[in-house]
Amino acid sequence: MKVLIINCGSSSLKYQLIDSDTEEVLAKGLCERIGIDGRLVYQKAGCDKEITEAPMPTHKEGIQMVLDALTNEKTGAISSLSEIDAIGHRVVHGGEKFACSAIVDTAMIDALEECTELAPLHNPANLIGIHVCQELMPGVPMVGVFDTAFHQTMPEKAYLYGLPYEYYEKYKVRRYGFHGTSHSFVSKELAKFLGIDINHSKLIVCHLGNGASVSAVVDGKCVDTSMGMTPLEGLVMGTRSGNVDPAILEFIAKKENLDLAGVMNVLNKKSGVYGLSKGLSSDFRDLEEASASGNVYATKALDVFCYHVTKTIGAYVAAMNGVDAIAFTAGIGENAPIVREAVVKNLEYLGVKLDEEQNQLRGKNTKISAEDSKVAVCVIPTNEELAICRETVALLK
Amino acid sequence: MKVLIINCGSSSLKYQLIDSDTEEVLAKGLCERIGIDGRLVYQKAGCDKEITEAPMPTHKEGIQMVLDALTNEKTGAISSLSEIDAIGHRVVHGGEKFACSAIVDTAMIDALEECTELAPLHNPANLIGIHVCQELMPGVPMVGVFDTAFHQTMPEKAYLYGLPYEYYEKYKVRRYGFHGTSHSFVSKELAKFLGIDINHSKLIVCHLGNGASVSAVVDGKCVDTSMGMTPLEGLVMGTRSGNVDPAILEFIAKKENLDLAGVMNVLNKKSGVYGLSKGLSSDFRDLEEASASGNVYATKALDVFCYHVTKTIGAYVAAMNGVDAIAFTAGIGENAPIVREAVVKNLEYLGVKLDEEQNQLRGKNTKISAEDSKVAVCVIPTNEELAICRETVALLK
Repeated sequence: MKVLIINCGSSSLKYQLIDSDTEEVLAKGLCERIGIDGRLVYQKAGCDKEITEAPMPTHKEGIQMVLDALTNEKTGAISSLSEIDAIGHRVVHGGEKFACSAIVDTAMIDALEECTELAPLHNPANLIGIHVCQELMPGVPMVGVFDTAFHQTMPEKAYLYGLPYEYYEKYKVRRYGFHGTSHSFVSKELAKFLGIDINHSKLIVCHLGNGASVSAVVDGKCVDTSMGMTPLEGLVMGTRSGNVDPAILEFIAKKENLDLAGVMNVLNKKSGVYGLSKGLSSDFRDLEEASASGNVYATKALDVFCYHVTKTIGAYVAAMNGVDAIAFTAGIGENAPIVREAVVKNLEYLGVKLDEEQNQLRGKNTKISAEDSKVAVCVIPTNEELAICRETVALLK
Repeated sequence: MKVLIINCGSSSLKYQLIDSDTEEVLAKGLCERIGIDGRLVYQKAGCDKEITEAPMPTHKEGIQMVLDALTNEKTGAISSLSEIDAIGHRVVHGGEKFACSAIVDTAMIDALEECTELAPLHNPANLIGIHVCQELMPGVPMVGVFDTAFHQTMPEKAYLYGLPYEYYEKYKVRRYGFHGTSHSFVSKELAKFLGIDINHSKLIVCHLGNGASVSAVVDGKCVDTSMGMTPLEGLVMGTRSGNVDPAILEFIAKKENLDLAGVMNVLNKKSGVYGLSKGLSSDFRDLEEASASGNVYATKALDVFCYHVTKTIGAYVAAMNGVDAIAFTAGIGENAPIVREAVVKNLEYLGVKLDEEQNQLRGKNTKISAEDSKVAVCVIPTNEELAICRETVALLK
């Protein structure tokens, strides 16, 4: 099957066309600046990137341009749209309705609309992507793959907040967790790579990117994760604060003369390692470089980030009463040996030993713990598009 | 020395008169409903409680009644006020100015007033207690013992939030931690009780009362603690939420049509196990009873509470890269075997083994882990008044 993967943001859209039999990426790219001016990046496997500037007032023009590029006579990856057998949509928030991926139908669209207030920035864009694809490719089966679905197996003690229980009943205020497609994919890959039976395993996945979350996975099922009702909670991230004393919001509002929306903007966009480094950067490559050159704020930011990852791993080891293996994934998890080293060096109490040479490798599944380490530590590159492709095919078979 | 310990709240006041040589409590009690009507509870050692209803428009009348009771001809613990050699005041927030207890003088009072905005509910009451004692017992040396002081040894990576660094510089937004007098006292008692050299030790103290916090103590110095800039952060507590996704505040404000102050009131007073149990109780004895009788909300509340304690212990074991001993203290920590059992049973990965019989004992220092447990787990009753007395004497010697 040839599966088109669509990941719609509010003013951008990422896509990949994957052959599910070979799991090869036939073409990939993105639309940027939708509603502003418009820019298409398209890359057929084995070819150079093509960049086209063209008006994209809405997602519809963007997706139309993607389809045109995919079927372009010269550089198209397919000769006709009829070759696209299915579409897999990334959807951010499935609420409590979706504990796994689901075929897109009217009932599903209605349910997604209900979840919109839980993810007001993301779900509307995902819905637009679905509607536009229905319009442009009528009859092609579509599947929604949810960022929250993998975490729906969490027990109540992990997903309930210490809030009036009525808020859960009335408004569904609870921990949902995100990056679920990645946590699911990486935990499965980790078990496979190590030759562990996932059905009898305790795994921790550290998805460390600009957004970052850790999850605890017992017997293949998520039992806890660090993001919460929204992707703001948990670790210190690129620009997001992660956990703070809730009383700080009121304090900052008063001191900075901000309303709650203003405080939320600070917590989402001006905090994290970006805020700690005094606005230097949210990119770890910049921070590592600056820290190496003696920038103390960059060093503080890295220290705080690594410390929070360490503590979260420790918390989940206790939550699971042990751990068999730990995976690092996503931009930072895959590419920052310095972060992995800082985190792992505090896990000696678990019998973890790092292989410093292996820890320098990049780009493929790698065991970075020493042979005699009691807990295996690995780098497992994530691949959310492939995961969405697999989910889509599994549902349509 | 005879030391009077004063712990002033906004409408109440607890006191103890302690002989620092024998560490005996000569008399103790409290003033309640200050500013409302007024009620003095007084108990001389070995005697029954005396309760006196009398007008207490301010703390001044309250403290005067305490002094009168202490020197009362029949049931007074002392014959004259001149026998009181020193006064030790509990002070909630010492900010970054006080890393240890300090003698009360003008500079200290000024510094405390500066910290008031960090603890607007507590520090003003503490200051009133100091001023009234200065007025009623001029010339008697006084010491301030801070709830935050013990935690001032935390490293930056533990006390910085993932917020713009400028908030720390300008407003001193950071983790301070509370219950420090208790964490300090209990960690010392724990090491002494186990015959461990505290200067080469990794300890965790779980202070679990209506307010609850956990601290990590390396070589006698606090390296992390779960309460934050205010006592709202960290564990789920009696009526406080502890950690929540910061985005939930905005969500609740909208849904419940509350302003930020209204949301803070919910998080401080209507949340925690009280909120989770649908308002049943914030008292663990009630919750245990209700849970045993099949109340599912009470069970949820207990499960969430214990789970958070477990995770926090796990996080601190990782923060310290190991642990030698764990102490439970305060109302719940000392009196709820069921909570200790639920927490400890998930620490098998550390080699922790519970002695179920020992776990039933109450009221004194008790090792509740089995002889072959790799980490010692103990119940260590806290005694903040005695700790304040010791600090006071140490400073005045």
